Amino acid sequence: MFNTISIIGCGLIGSSILRAVKKKNLAKEIKIFDNSREVASYLKKEDICTNVSNDIRQCVSNSDLIIIATPLSSYKEIILSIKDTLKKNVILTDTGSVKKEVMKIVHNINLTDVHWIPSHPIAGTEESGPRAGQAGMFENRWCIISPPKNSAEQPVKKLKALWEAIGSKVKIMTPEEHDEILSLTSHLPHAIAYNIVRTVMGVEDKLKQEIIQYSAGGLRDFTRIAASNPLMWRDILLDNSENVSKGINSFIEKLNELKKAINDKNEDRLYQIFNSTKEVRKEIIKAGQDTSMPDFGRKKD
Amino acid sequence: MFNTISIIGCGLIGSSILRAVKKKNLAKEIKIFDNSREVASYLKKEDICTNVSNDIRQCVSNSDLIIIATPLSSYKEIILSIKDTLKKNVILTDTGSVKKEVMKIVHNINLTDVHWIPSHPIAGTEESGPRAGQAGMFENRWCIISPPKNSAEQPVKKLKALWEAIGSKVKIMTPEEHDEILSLTSHLPHAIAYNIVRTVMGVEDKLKQEIIQYSAGGLRDFTRIAASNPLMWRDILLDNSENVSKGINSFIEKLNELKKAINDKNEDRLYQIFNSTKEVRKEIIKAGQDTSMPDFGRKKD
Repeated sequence: MFNTISIIGCGLIGSSILRAVKKKNLAKEIKIFDNSREVASYLKKEDICTNVSNDIRQCVSNSDLIIIATPLSSYKEIILSIKDTLKKNVILTDTGSVKKEVMKIVHNINLTDVHWIPSHPIAGTEESGPRAGQAGMFENRWCIISPPKNSAEQPVKKLKALWEAIGSKVKIMTPEEHDEILSLTSHLPHAIAYNIVRTVMGVEDKLKQEIIQYSAGGLRDFTRIAASNPLMWRDILLDNSENVSKGINSFIEKLNELKKAINDKNEDRLYQIFNSTKEVRKEIIKAGQDTSMPDFGRKKD
Repeated sequence: MFNTISIIGCGLIGSSILRAVKKKNLAKEIKIFDNSREVASYLKKEDICTNVSNDIRQCVSNSDLIIIATPLSSYKEIILSIKDTLKKNVILTDTGSVKKEVMKIVHNINLTDVHWIPSHPIAGTEESGPRAGQAGMFENRWCIISPPKNSAEQPVKKLKALWEAIGSKVKIMTPEEHDEILSLTSHLPHAIAYNIVRTVMGVEDKLKQEIIQYSAGGLRDFTRIAASNPLMWRDILLDNSENVSKGINSFIEKLNELKKAINDKNEDRLYQIFNSTKEVRKEIIKAGQDTSMPDFGRKKD
């Protein structure tokens, strides 16, 4: 499918792409750059990739497809450092969770003869690093592609075909649509999960152990989400700050409504509030985004 | 272990106790009362229990142990209707998630020759009703017992032994301690889960289908929690309103801090906030309250 694919940043997502591309045999050559020595030596030692470079320019110079899979805050430096060594008509993509800011950065760098087409695979776990990567990470998961206006058709098709080949279902949308939808389905929920864990663990020390002990009643599920990569989430919330901030305002407004119903002992209103969210669950299951299998807590595994 | 056990209310928890007691053969006779005809006929039809009564007094009259497994708001009516038919020295317990209010109700009814010892098994799923019950529901899960001051020792021991026999680890604490800890580990997290789902689904209709479609990025996990029994959660938040309301205030305070850091583009503060919650996850796994197995979304099941 490609002669040479370069992956910059080989953490959870980068190493999963690497594994999937190798497994499906989608490139003659795969080259990796990661600025962590530990990552590089892990990839070599485990024989996951032998072509690990410590020179980012050398890593990308003859590539047909470059995938940036690092935190959003490192894009500018990366693109500036490789821009003069790129093969003509290379496809440049990423895996970041926010699009609008990144589009601005790339636009300002003014790349020539480069097909810049951002991607966002909606996949991952709460873990980080190449050890947590999996070839099956993208199977049956959505990947959103946001080509800039006036993008050439052929490179978009080629990139779409790659994501599909590693198992994704691909959807094309504008950066603005992407950032608005993801702020609601992912960024705001993560901010809230971090916040609930921080609130609960803000109690006096003597209660902490008991909270850990009885966390299975609800808190536990939030701690999983709130254990995700902090650097990645810092960058996401900064890059999508407008949408997230708007979301936080609506959230607080609704929470004050709920608090009022609790304090007023308004039984009917509370029932109405708690009953209104049942339908959403059914629709998510219908859309194949979760199973109806109840969760007993994953202790038994 | 007991001659006769009566279970009042045979939903998710009541039917799980029924199944577990039968499986472990812990009573000579088990009697059920449920005011839903559909539940009664289901239990008979599936041969889960043949002794299903539609007369609550008849159901409890010769029992050594009565377990109330209904929503909190129905306790008063139930206890008033059975109080004159109880066997001397019967043990009366429940499975409710809040204790202080219930203690008051029972205290005011002024039962005589009854050992009232509230229980709270921290177990369950997002489903409701007897079809969702499981004999293994309580295995390795905590059950908190809150005996009133000056309770006799023997009945507490007997009740503890029953919970242990169906797999629970038992902890004794006061109603006040129970309600404070559970407000943090369970009640506040549930209120927040309902609130995030309601906030996100409050968008214009045209976005709703896309939100469902891309919910795997975080929102999905909240919808599972927010699909729990609305009547039960209404009662829990009302009965534990003081603790929950206090929790909501701290939550909003912390969320405003987070919003400020986002709006100020304060990178260091955001990293600090997101990094502070990682340790909690490790401690929960260490305490055996979850596995370290990452969650890829349960789609594949």
